[in-house]
Amino acid sequence: MDSALTVDQVRLTPILIADPPLLNTQGVHQPYTPRLIVEVITAGGVVGLGETYGDGKYLQLAKPLADALPGHRITDVNGLFALADQVCGDSHHTDTGVDAGGLRGAQTLDKLRLSVVSAFEVAFLDALGRHRGEPVHELLGGKVRDAVDYSAYLFYRWAAHPAGAHRDATVDDGWGEAVDPAGVVAQARRFADTYGFRSFKLKGGVFAPDEEIAAIRALAEEFPGQPLRLDPNGAWSVETSLYVADQLGDVLEYLEDPATGTDLMARVAAGTSVPLATNMCVTALPEIAEAFRRDAVQVVLSDHHYWGGLRRTQELAAICRAFGVGLSMHSNTHLGISLAAMTQVAATVPNLDYACDSHYPWQTEDVITARHTFEGGALTVSDAPGLGVELDRDALAALHRRWAEDDGTMRERDDAAAMRKAHPDWQRPALPRW
Amino acid sequence: MDSALTVDQVRLTPILIADPPLLNTQGVHQPYTPRLIVEVITAGGVVGLGETYGDGKYLQLAKPLADALPGHRITDVNGLFALADQVCGDSHHTDTGVDAGGLRGAQTLDKLRLSVVSAFEVAFLDALGRHRGEPVHELLGGKVRDAVDYSAYLFYRWAAHPAGAHRDATVDDGWGEAVDPAGVVAQARRFADTYGFRSFKLKGGVFAPDEEIAAIRALAEEFPGQPLRLDPNGAWSVETSLYVADQLGDVLEYLEDPATGTDLMARVAAGTSVPLATNMCVTALPEIAEAFRRDAVQVVLSDHHYWGGLRRTQELAAICRAFGVGLSMHSNTHLGISLAAMTQVAATVPNLDYACDSHYPWQTEDVITARHTFEGGALTVSDAPGLGVELDRDALAALHRRWAEDDGTMRERDDAAAMRKAHPDWQRPALPRW
Repeated sequence: MDSALTVDQVRLTPILIADPPLLNTQGVHQPYTPRLIVEVITAGGVVGLGETYGDGKYLQLAKPLADALPGHRITDVNGLFALADQVCGDSHHTDTGVDAGGLRGAQTLDKLRLSVVSAFEVAFLDALGRHRGEPVHELLGGKVRDAVDYSAYLFYRWAAHPAGAHRDATVDDGWGEAVDPAGVVAQARRFADTYGFRSFKLKGGVFAPDEEIAAIRALAEEFPGQPLRLDPNGAWSVETSLYVADQLGDVLEYLEDPATGTDLMARVAAGTSVPLATNMCVTALPEIAEAFRRDAVQVVLSDHHYWGGLRRTQELAAICRAFGVGLSMHSNTHLGISLAAMTQVAATVPNLDYACDSHYPWQTEDVITARHTFEGGALTVSDAPGLGVELDRDALAALHRRWAEDDGTMRERDDAAAMRKAHPDWQRPALPRW
Repeated sequence: MDSALTVDQVRLTPILIADPPLLNTQGVHQPYTPRLIVEVITAGGVVGLGETYGDGKYLQLAKPLADALPGHRITDVNGLFALADQVCGDSHHTDTGVDAGGLRGAQTLDKLRLSVVSAFEVAFLDALGRHRGEPVHELLGGKVRDAVDYSAYLFYRWAAHPAGAHRDATVDDGWGEAVDPAGVVAQARRFADTYGFRSFKLKGGVFAPDEEIAAIRALAEEFPGQPLRLDPNGAWSVETSLYVADQLGDVLEYLEDPATGTDLMARVAAGTSVPLATNMCVTALPEIAEAFRRDAVQVVLSDHHYWGGLRRTQELAAICRAFGVGLSMHSNTHLGISLAAMTQVAATVPNLDYACDSHYPWQTEDVITARHTFEGGALTVSDAPGLGVELDRDALAALHRRWAEDDGTMRERDDAAAMRKAHPDWQRPALPRW
């Protein structure tokens, strides 16, 4: 086998990236959020890129994996998982609470490890594609579409981070606030006009259900017949979920994680014909069986970070195909490397039933030289070698400097702590909130 | 992208291969059985090999696919499936009866097409591996084991094909008959001594259940503690299945397809703790959901021909992982190309829970230059480029000549017709037989 394809070196670069004051049921996004950029350098001198969460618990797992990788073949993805099990297996991070954002469902060491490994798997594929002059989608069996549809990801938000959120985070990003139906519609209109998005997801769980129902109704009036989604991140009781489903059944494409956990989701699903989507109750292989057996979810929103990379995302797609469960993709605060990875794998999945989420337009910073551009609500699938993105080393260095110089307050994403800058008494709410 | 990786030419070679007089519930194996050898020749001059069923209905689907392939990239496996859907989609072969062997469960055009496509997918992977100097397992994410365990595949059998079965098929293959417990044990002993097999599967459904129970008991005495399996190909009623499970529960690793179809299998499963395996009631994606939801099967015996190739077999493995259903692999009358393919994919599947079946020792002919050799009941996973096998063109030509010169009687496998050579009144039995 070609010795050029072995790992020579791995570089881990934690960074802090700007994030607007987007609201969710747990609190508000911090002015900066941590990400980890992974560079896998092969013996052949090729650099593969990956990106994942950058909170301390992820960094702590990424370090030993990076140390163990030199000599590993970048074609050996199965071995990568075995290695991760081995070197990241004795971590003491086995708490089962919610994650920093509070939005990822139950947290386990396995899930943390998969989120870390995902960045290495993507970097392997990127490097392999560059070695071979082939796009990642070709390494994954070939694209079945030339463009991947995305939906606008609407957020209730403030115009600016609260005073005191961070020393240099008071700059207005120009989007203004959106805290009512009119604000949401204006945001959606700008998204549609700027990027051509034709479906819209509103992050809910922020205001009382009737207010969010009104916002969706306003969207339905502004964009008649276009797919709408509402995602309160598990903030509602079964009763409230059914109430909302009843109120919005005629305009919702799906309702995302109205309630928390498979049991409550199954009870909601049993009471409505509105499809339920999730990126909270089915986020790892062991959570699938019960959810599918109970018909608790009708759409799984995959996230290649959660699932351990692009091949495992394809496996998830096969599982969904087998069970007639819909598939789409979730997005969180991430940069262009992850969006490229997501687009490459999305291009290979036959049963991509819905437009993918994209948080990307909210990100004003990036570590790639040419940002992705949505046109007609879609991204063209790159046929360039690997992921088709190039690292902007100056940008990476600047964002890493921000991380290195941080006083510690931004290195762990904590939406509740961020909310306390505006509302000192704010506590992470007990669910259901409504 | 590298233009050397496009398909330049495809060669389809139907052949007839010798098969001993092995008995099953439908009848007896014919003296010769049809196979199809697929050669995909790339623009770069590399030949990739694949193998599948060779009955007329398969040939009929393979032809238009082969004609459509020139110009297709061998990396584009997803596109191969789309192409097959397109060019093989209008076949009139939509009968839903059992297949020629009667042992593949419900037959649909989709299943036929996947069995055909599988040979092309394997040939693509073989060619790609040869181009890159990498074994197929590396293209599939890397091997997780260096050897794949196989089990001995015991058959009730006659010493020779009946007179009149075929003009030149009366040669004794030296194994002798096995029609009772002593014969089965002698056969198993020879398998164990020759190849080192440590687990044993008996093809049942041939004699009354008590006789087969006695055979398994005799094996348990001869090989105490070693895994045993019994597979009557759906010949039993629920009651009989439960009776056999009760009689053999202490020595069976699993019971394979005791009854026919998901409904009956679910009823058997509900009444016994002996795991049920299948390669009849779950042989394609649409059959999984109901079977898993009803817990009708505990072990799926994949067959990369059925499932459409090696990547789809990996997807099946992921589905089984998600649902805690065991996985192993089934084998039928096939040659060394398919055994190589099976071994390569088996090497990459983490949850290969049981030794795979292998019919291969019964095959005295092959189209590869160096036959596979079982040692310690296992095959070493080849790290040579592609599948690691070379085509023996003389052997291929001779076996094709046999096919070309056949009077038509052997080109369609029909175990019931073969049985009528010995028992003129034999009819394909209605199930359940017992």
